[in-house]
Amino acid sequence: MHTSLTCAACGLDHAVDQLQNLCTACGKPLLAGYDLAALRETFTPDAVRRRATRSMWRFADVLPVDDVSEAVSLGEGQTPLLRLERRGAFAEFENLFVKDEAFNPTGSFKARGMAAAVTRAVALGAKVVALPSAGNAAGAATYYANRAGIECFLFMPEDTPPANIIESVVGGANVFLVNGLISDCGKLVKQGCEQFGWFDLSTLKEPFRIEGKKTMGYELAFDMADAAQATQLQLPDVIFYPTGGGTGLIGMWKAFDEMQQLGWIGPERPRMVVVQAENCAPVVRAFEQGADHAEMFANASTVASGLRVPAAVGDFIMLRVLRESNGTALTISDAELLDGVREFATQQGIYACPEGGAVWKAAQQLLKTGWLKPDEKIVLFNTGSGLKYNHLFPVGGLPVLDHTDPDCLDCVVG
Amino acid sequence: MHTSLTCAACGLDHAVDQLQNLCTACGKPLLAGYDLAALRETFTPDAVRRRATRSMWRFADVLPVDDVSEAVSLGEGQTPLLRLERRGAFAEFENLFVKDEAFNPTGSFKARGMAAAVTRAVALGAKVVALPSAGNAAGAATYYANRAGIECFLFMPEDTPPANIIESVVGGANVFLVNGLISDCGKLVKQGCEQFGWFDLSTLKEPFRIEGKKTMGYELAFDMADAAQATQLQLPDVIFYPTGGGTGLIGMWKAFDEMQQLGWIGPERPRMVVVQAENCAPVVRAFEQGADHAEMFANASTVASGLRVPAAVGDFIMLRVLRESNGTALTISDAELLDGVREFATQQGIYACPEGGAVWKAAQQLLKTGWLKPDEKIVLFNTGSGLKYNHLFPVGGLPVLDHTDPDCLDCVVG
Ligand SMILES: Cc1ncc(COP(=O)(O)O)c(C=O)c1O
Ligand SMILES: Cc1ncc(COP(=O)(O)O)c(C=O)c1O
Repeated sequence: MHTSLTCAACGLDHAVDQLQNLCTACGKPLLAGYDLAALRETFTPDAVRRRATRSMWRFADVLPVDDVSEAVSLGEGQTPLLRLERRGAFAEFENLFVKDEAFNPTGSFKARGMAAAVTRAVALGAKVVALPSAGNAAGAATYYANRAGIECFLFMPEDTPPANIIESVVGGANVFLVNGLISDCGKLVKQGCEQFGWFDLSTLKEPFRIEGKKTMGYELAFDMADAAQATQLQLPDVIFYPTGGGTGLIGMWKAFDEMQQLGWIGPERPRMVVVQAENCAPVVRAFEQGADHAEMFANASTVASGLRVPAAVGDFIMLRVLRESNGTALTISDAELLDGVREFATQQGIYACPEGGAVWKAAQQLLKTGWLKPDEKIVLFNTGSGLKYNHLFPVGGLPVLDHTDPDCLDCVVG
Repeated sequence: MHTSLTCAACGLDHAVDQLQNLCTACGKPLLAGYDLAALRETFTPDAVRRRATRSMWRFADVLPVDDVSEAVSLGEGQTPLLRLERRGAFAEFENLFVKDEAFNPTGSFKARGMAAAVTRAVALGAKVVALPSAGNAAGAATYYANRAGIECFLFMPEDTPPANIIESVVGGANVFLVNGLISDCGKLVKQGCEQFGWFDLSTLKEPFRIEGKKTMGYELAFDMADAAQATQLQLPDVIFYPTGGGTGLIGMWKAFDEMQQLGWIGPERPRMVVVQAENCAPVVRAFEQGADHAEMFANASTVASGLRVPAAVGDFIMLRVLRESNGTALTISDAELLDGVREFATQQGIYACPEGGAVWKAAQQLLKTGWLKPDEKIVLFNTGSGLKYNHLFPVGGLPVLDHTDPDCLDCVVG
C-alpha cells in the first residue's frame, strides 16, 4: 500500500485515504509513493518468484492495496515476453523481444491501469466512474467496473473503432458517442463528474492507472532474467513504447526507480524510445525542439487509435524520461505501421495492434541509422491485440470454391 | 517426449518418428503415450512450480518435445482460473470458477492444440499444413504455421464469422472460402493432402492437438490447489466443457490419467459435462440414447461456431468419458447462450465467447435440477474471447451527443 501521493510537478502532498484526481494546487498528475525501505526485507525477487498469484498483483506490495485479496482482478499482467524469430527484416536483430500485452483482459494493456485504478476507487467509495476514450480504455473501464459491481459512463468520439464500442455496449456500460474529438469527450466527463459526482478515470487524472501500468517494468526485469536464464534481475538496453498519454512509459520509469530503491537493480537504465504516429506526434515534436512541454498537435489523425492523443497531461514527465534515459523519439506513418502489423503476423505469428506495428517499424529504422546496435537487448511493446483492429483489414475478393466441382482444387496451387 | 502412438479404438501401435494421421488400420484417432514411470522422479509438481516457463510448455515432459526449446510457442496456456463473483444468478454458486482461455495467442484455446501439433509436424519435416475450419482453429493454425515458418492452407465455409477470416488473411494464410459445410471443407483438405502432400491438421486427425489441449487438465490441478491455498494438487468436482470436436474434453481426461500414473493425484475424477447447442447436439443426443457412437446431426446450426460440429471423429471417446466420470450432457439454445455472454460481461467483467456463455447457462440449469450442489467446486471453460464474436452484437441507435450544446448532458442521467 502506498504511503504518499505527491504532485509530479510542484511536489505538494495529498491525503492517501480519499479519492484524488489532479494536484489540487497546480493541476498536474499525482504519483504514489511507498515505504520501500521497509519493504526491502520481505519484498524480494525470490519472494515474488515463490508467489502463486498469476497476475500483476504478485507485485501487490507496491500497488494500492494492503492485501492482494482486495484487488479487482481479471487476471491482468504476467504477459509473455517472446523472443522474435530471426526471419525477414527481423533477422538483423540478435536480441529482439516483444512484450505481448494482447494477453490481458479486454485485449490490451489498458487492463493493468484500470485494474489498479478501479481497485482503489472502489476501496475509497466510488460508485460510478467515467472517462473519455477513443479506443481500448473504454473496454477496460467497462469490464473492471463490472467486476467491481459499480457503474461506468463512457464518452467516445463517433469515429471510434467498432470493436471498442461493441465490447463496452455488451458490457452494459453507459456509452455515449460524441460528435467531436477525445478532448471534447474529456470536457463532457469533467462536467459530468462535477454535476453527478462520477469519479474521473481519465489518463493520468487519477494516480493509479500509472501504478497498474508500472507493473510492466517490474515484469520486464524478471522476464529478461528468465530469458538469460539468470537469477539476477536485469533490464533490456532499449525499450520501444507506442506513446499516447504515456502512462506506461512514465509508469515503467517509476518502476525502475522503485526497484533500485528496493535493491533489486543498480542505477543502469534502458534507453526509452517514444514512438508516435506521423500525424499525431506532439511528444516527438517537443523532444526534437528540446522543449519541456508539448504543444497540442492540430488535426491529429492515425489509424492507431491508441496514439491519437494530441495533448497529454504527462508530457513534461515523458520528455524528462526521454532525456534522462538517453532515449529518443520518432514517428511512423500509418502505411508503415500497417506494414509492421503484417510483418509481425506473417513472419512472427503475432497479430499485433497497429501501435505494436509502429514500434517494430521504429526499431527497424533506428537500426538503419545506427542508433541501435544489432546485438543490443531490445524490447518492443505490443500493447494490444490485433483482433480489436480487424476493421483496418477489410477482406473481399477471396476465392470461393465450389466443392461440387471435382476440379475445384486445380486453382489452389499453380 | 512421447514413446508410443496407439489407436484409441483398436490399439494398434504406430511409429513415433514419422508424421501420422488416423490409425492406418481402422481410421480412428491415435493417442500419444509416455514413459510415466520413468518421469516420476524428476517430473513432480514442485519441479513444475519452480520452472520459469510461462506457458503450457512447463509440462514439456508430457508433450511431443525432447526439450522445451524445440517448442513452436507464442506463450499459449497458463491461463488464469478466476473465481466468479457471487452476484446475480452467479450468487447461488459457492465455488464457481472460470478457466479463461481468452488469454491465449489468437484469442482461443485452439492455440494450445496447434502449438503442440505444429511443433511436432515441423520436427518431422512438414512444410505445409492444411485444415478445414469454421472458426478459431483457422487463426491458430495460421499463426503457429507462421511462427514455425511453414505454409498453411485453410478451407472455410463462406458463412464463417468475419473475425476468423480476417485474422487468417492478415496472417497471410492461403484462405479459400467454400460454398458448403465444414464437412465439405474437410473433404477438400483430404483431397489436397493426397494431391499436394500437405499435412492434415484437422481435429483429432493427427495425435498432438489433443496433447496440447490436455495441458488444460494439468493446469487445472495446480490452479485448484492455488485457489485453495494448498500444496497438494486437486481437481474440481465438476467441469463444464463446450463441446465441438471434443479435443479438450478427451485431452483433459487423458491428463488426469497421466497425473494419476505420475502419482500426482488419486483415482478421484471430476464429473464431466458436455454442453452443446440446441441445433447441433450430436453427442448430447447419443448420450441420452445410451449410444456408443453419435450420428451425424442434420441441418446443424448455431451462432457458437466452435460448437457447429455435426459429426466428431472422437465421439466414442467422449461418450466413454461422460459415462466413466458420471457426467452428463445438455443443450443450450442460441438465445440463452447469448444471454449467458451478456451475464458474464455485465456481472463478472468477462467478455466470453458464446461457447463460454453456453457453459454458464448449463451450470445454472443443472443447479436448478439439483444435479449440482451449491457448494461443489465447479469449473466453466470459457474457450475463447468474445472479441472474435462482435458480429453477434451489432450496435446501433446509440445516443450521439452534440458537445457544442451546453445542455447535452441533461439526457445522460434521469
Ligand atoms: C493499443 C494501445 N497502445 C498504446 C496506447 C498508448 O498508451 P499510453 O497512454 O500509455 O501512452 C494506447 C492507449 O490508448 C493503446 O490503446
Ligand atoms: C471457442 C470454442 N469453444 C469450443 C470449441 C469446441 O472445442 P472442441 O473441438 O475441443 O470440442 C471450439 C472449436 O472450434 C471453439 O472455437
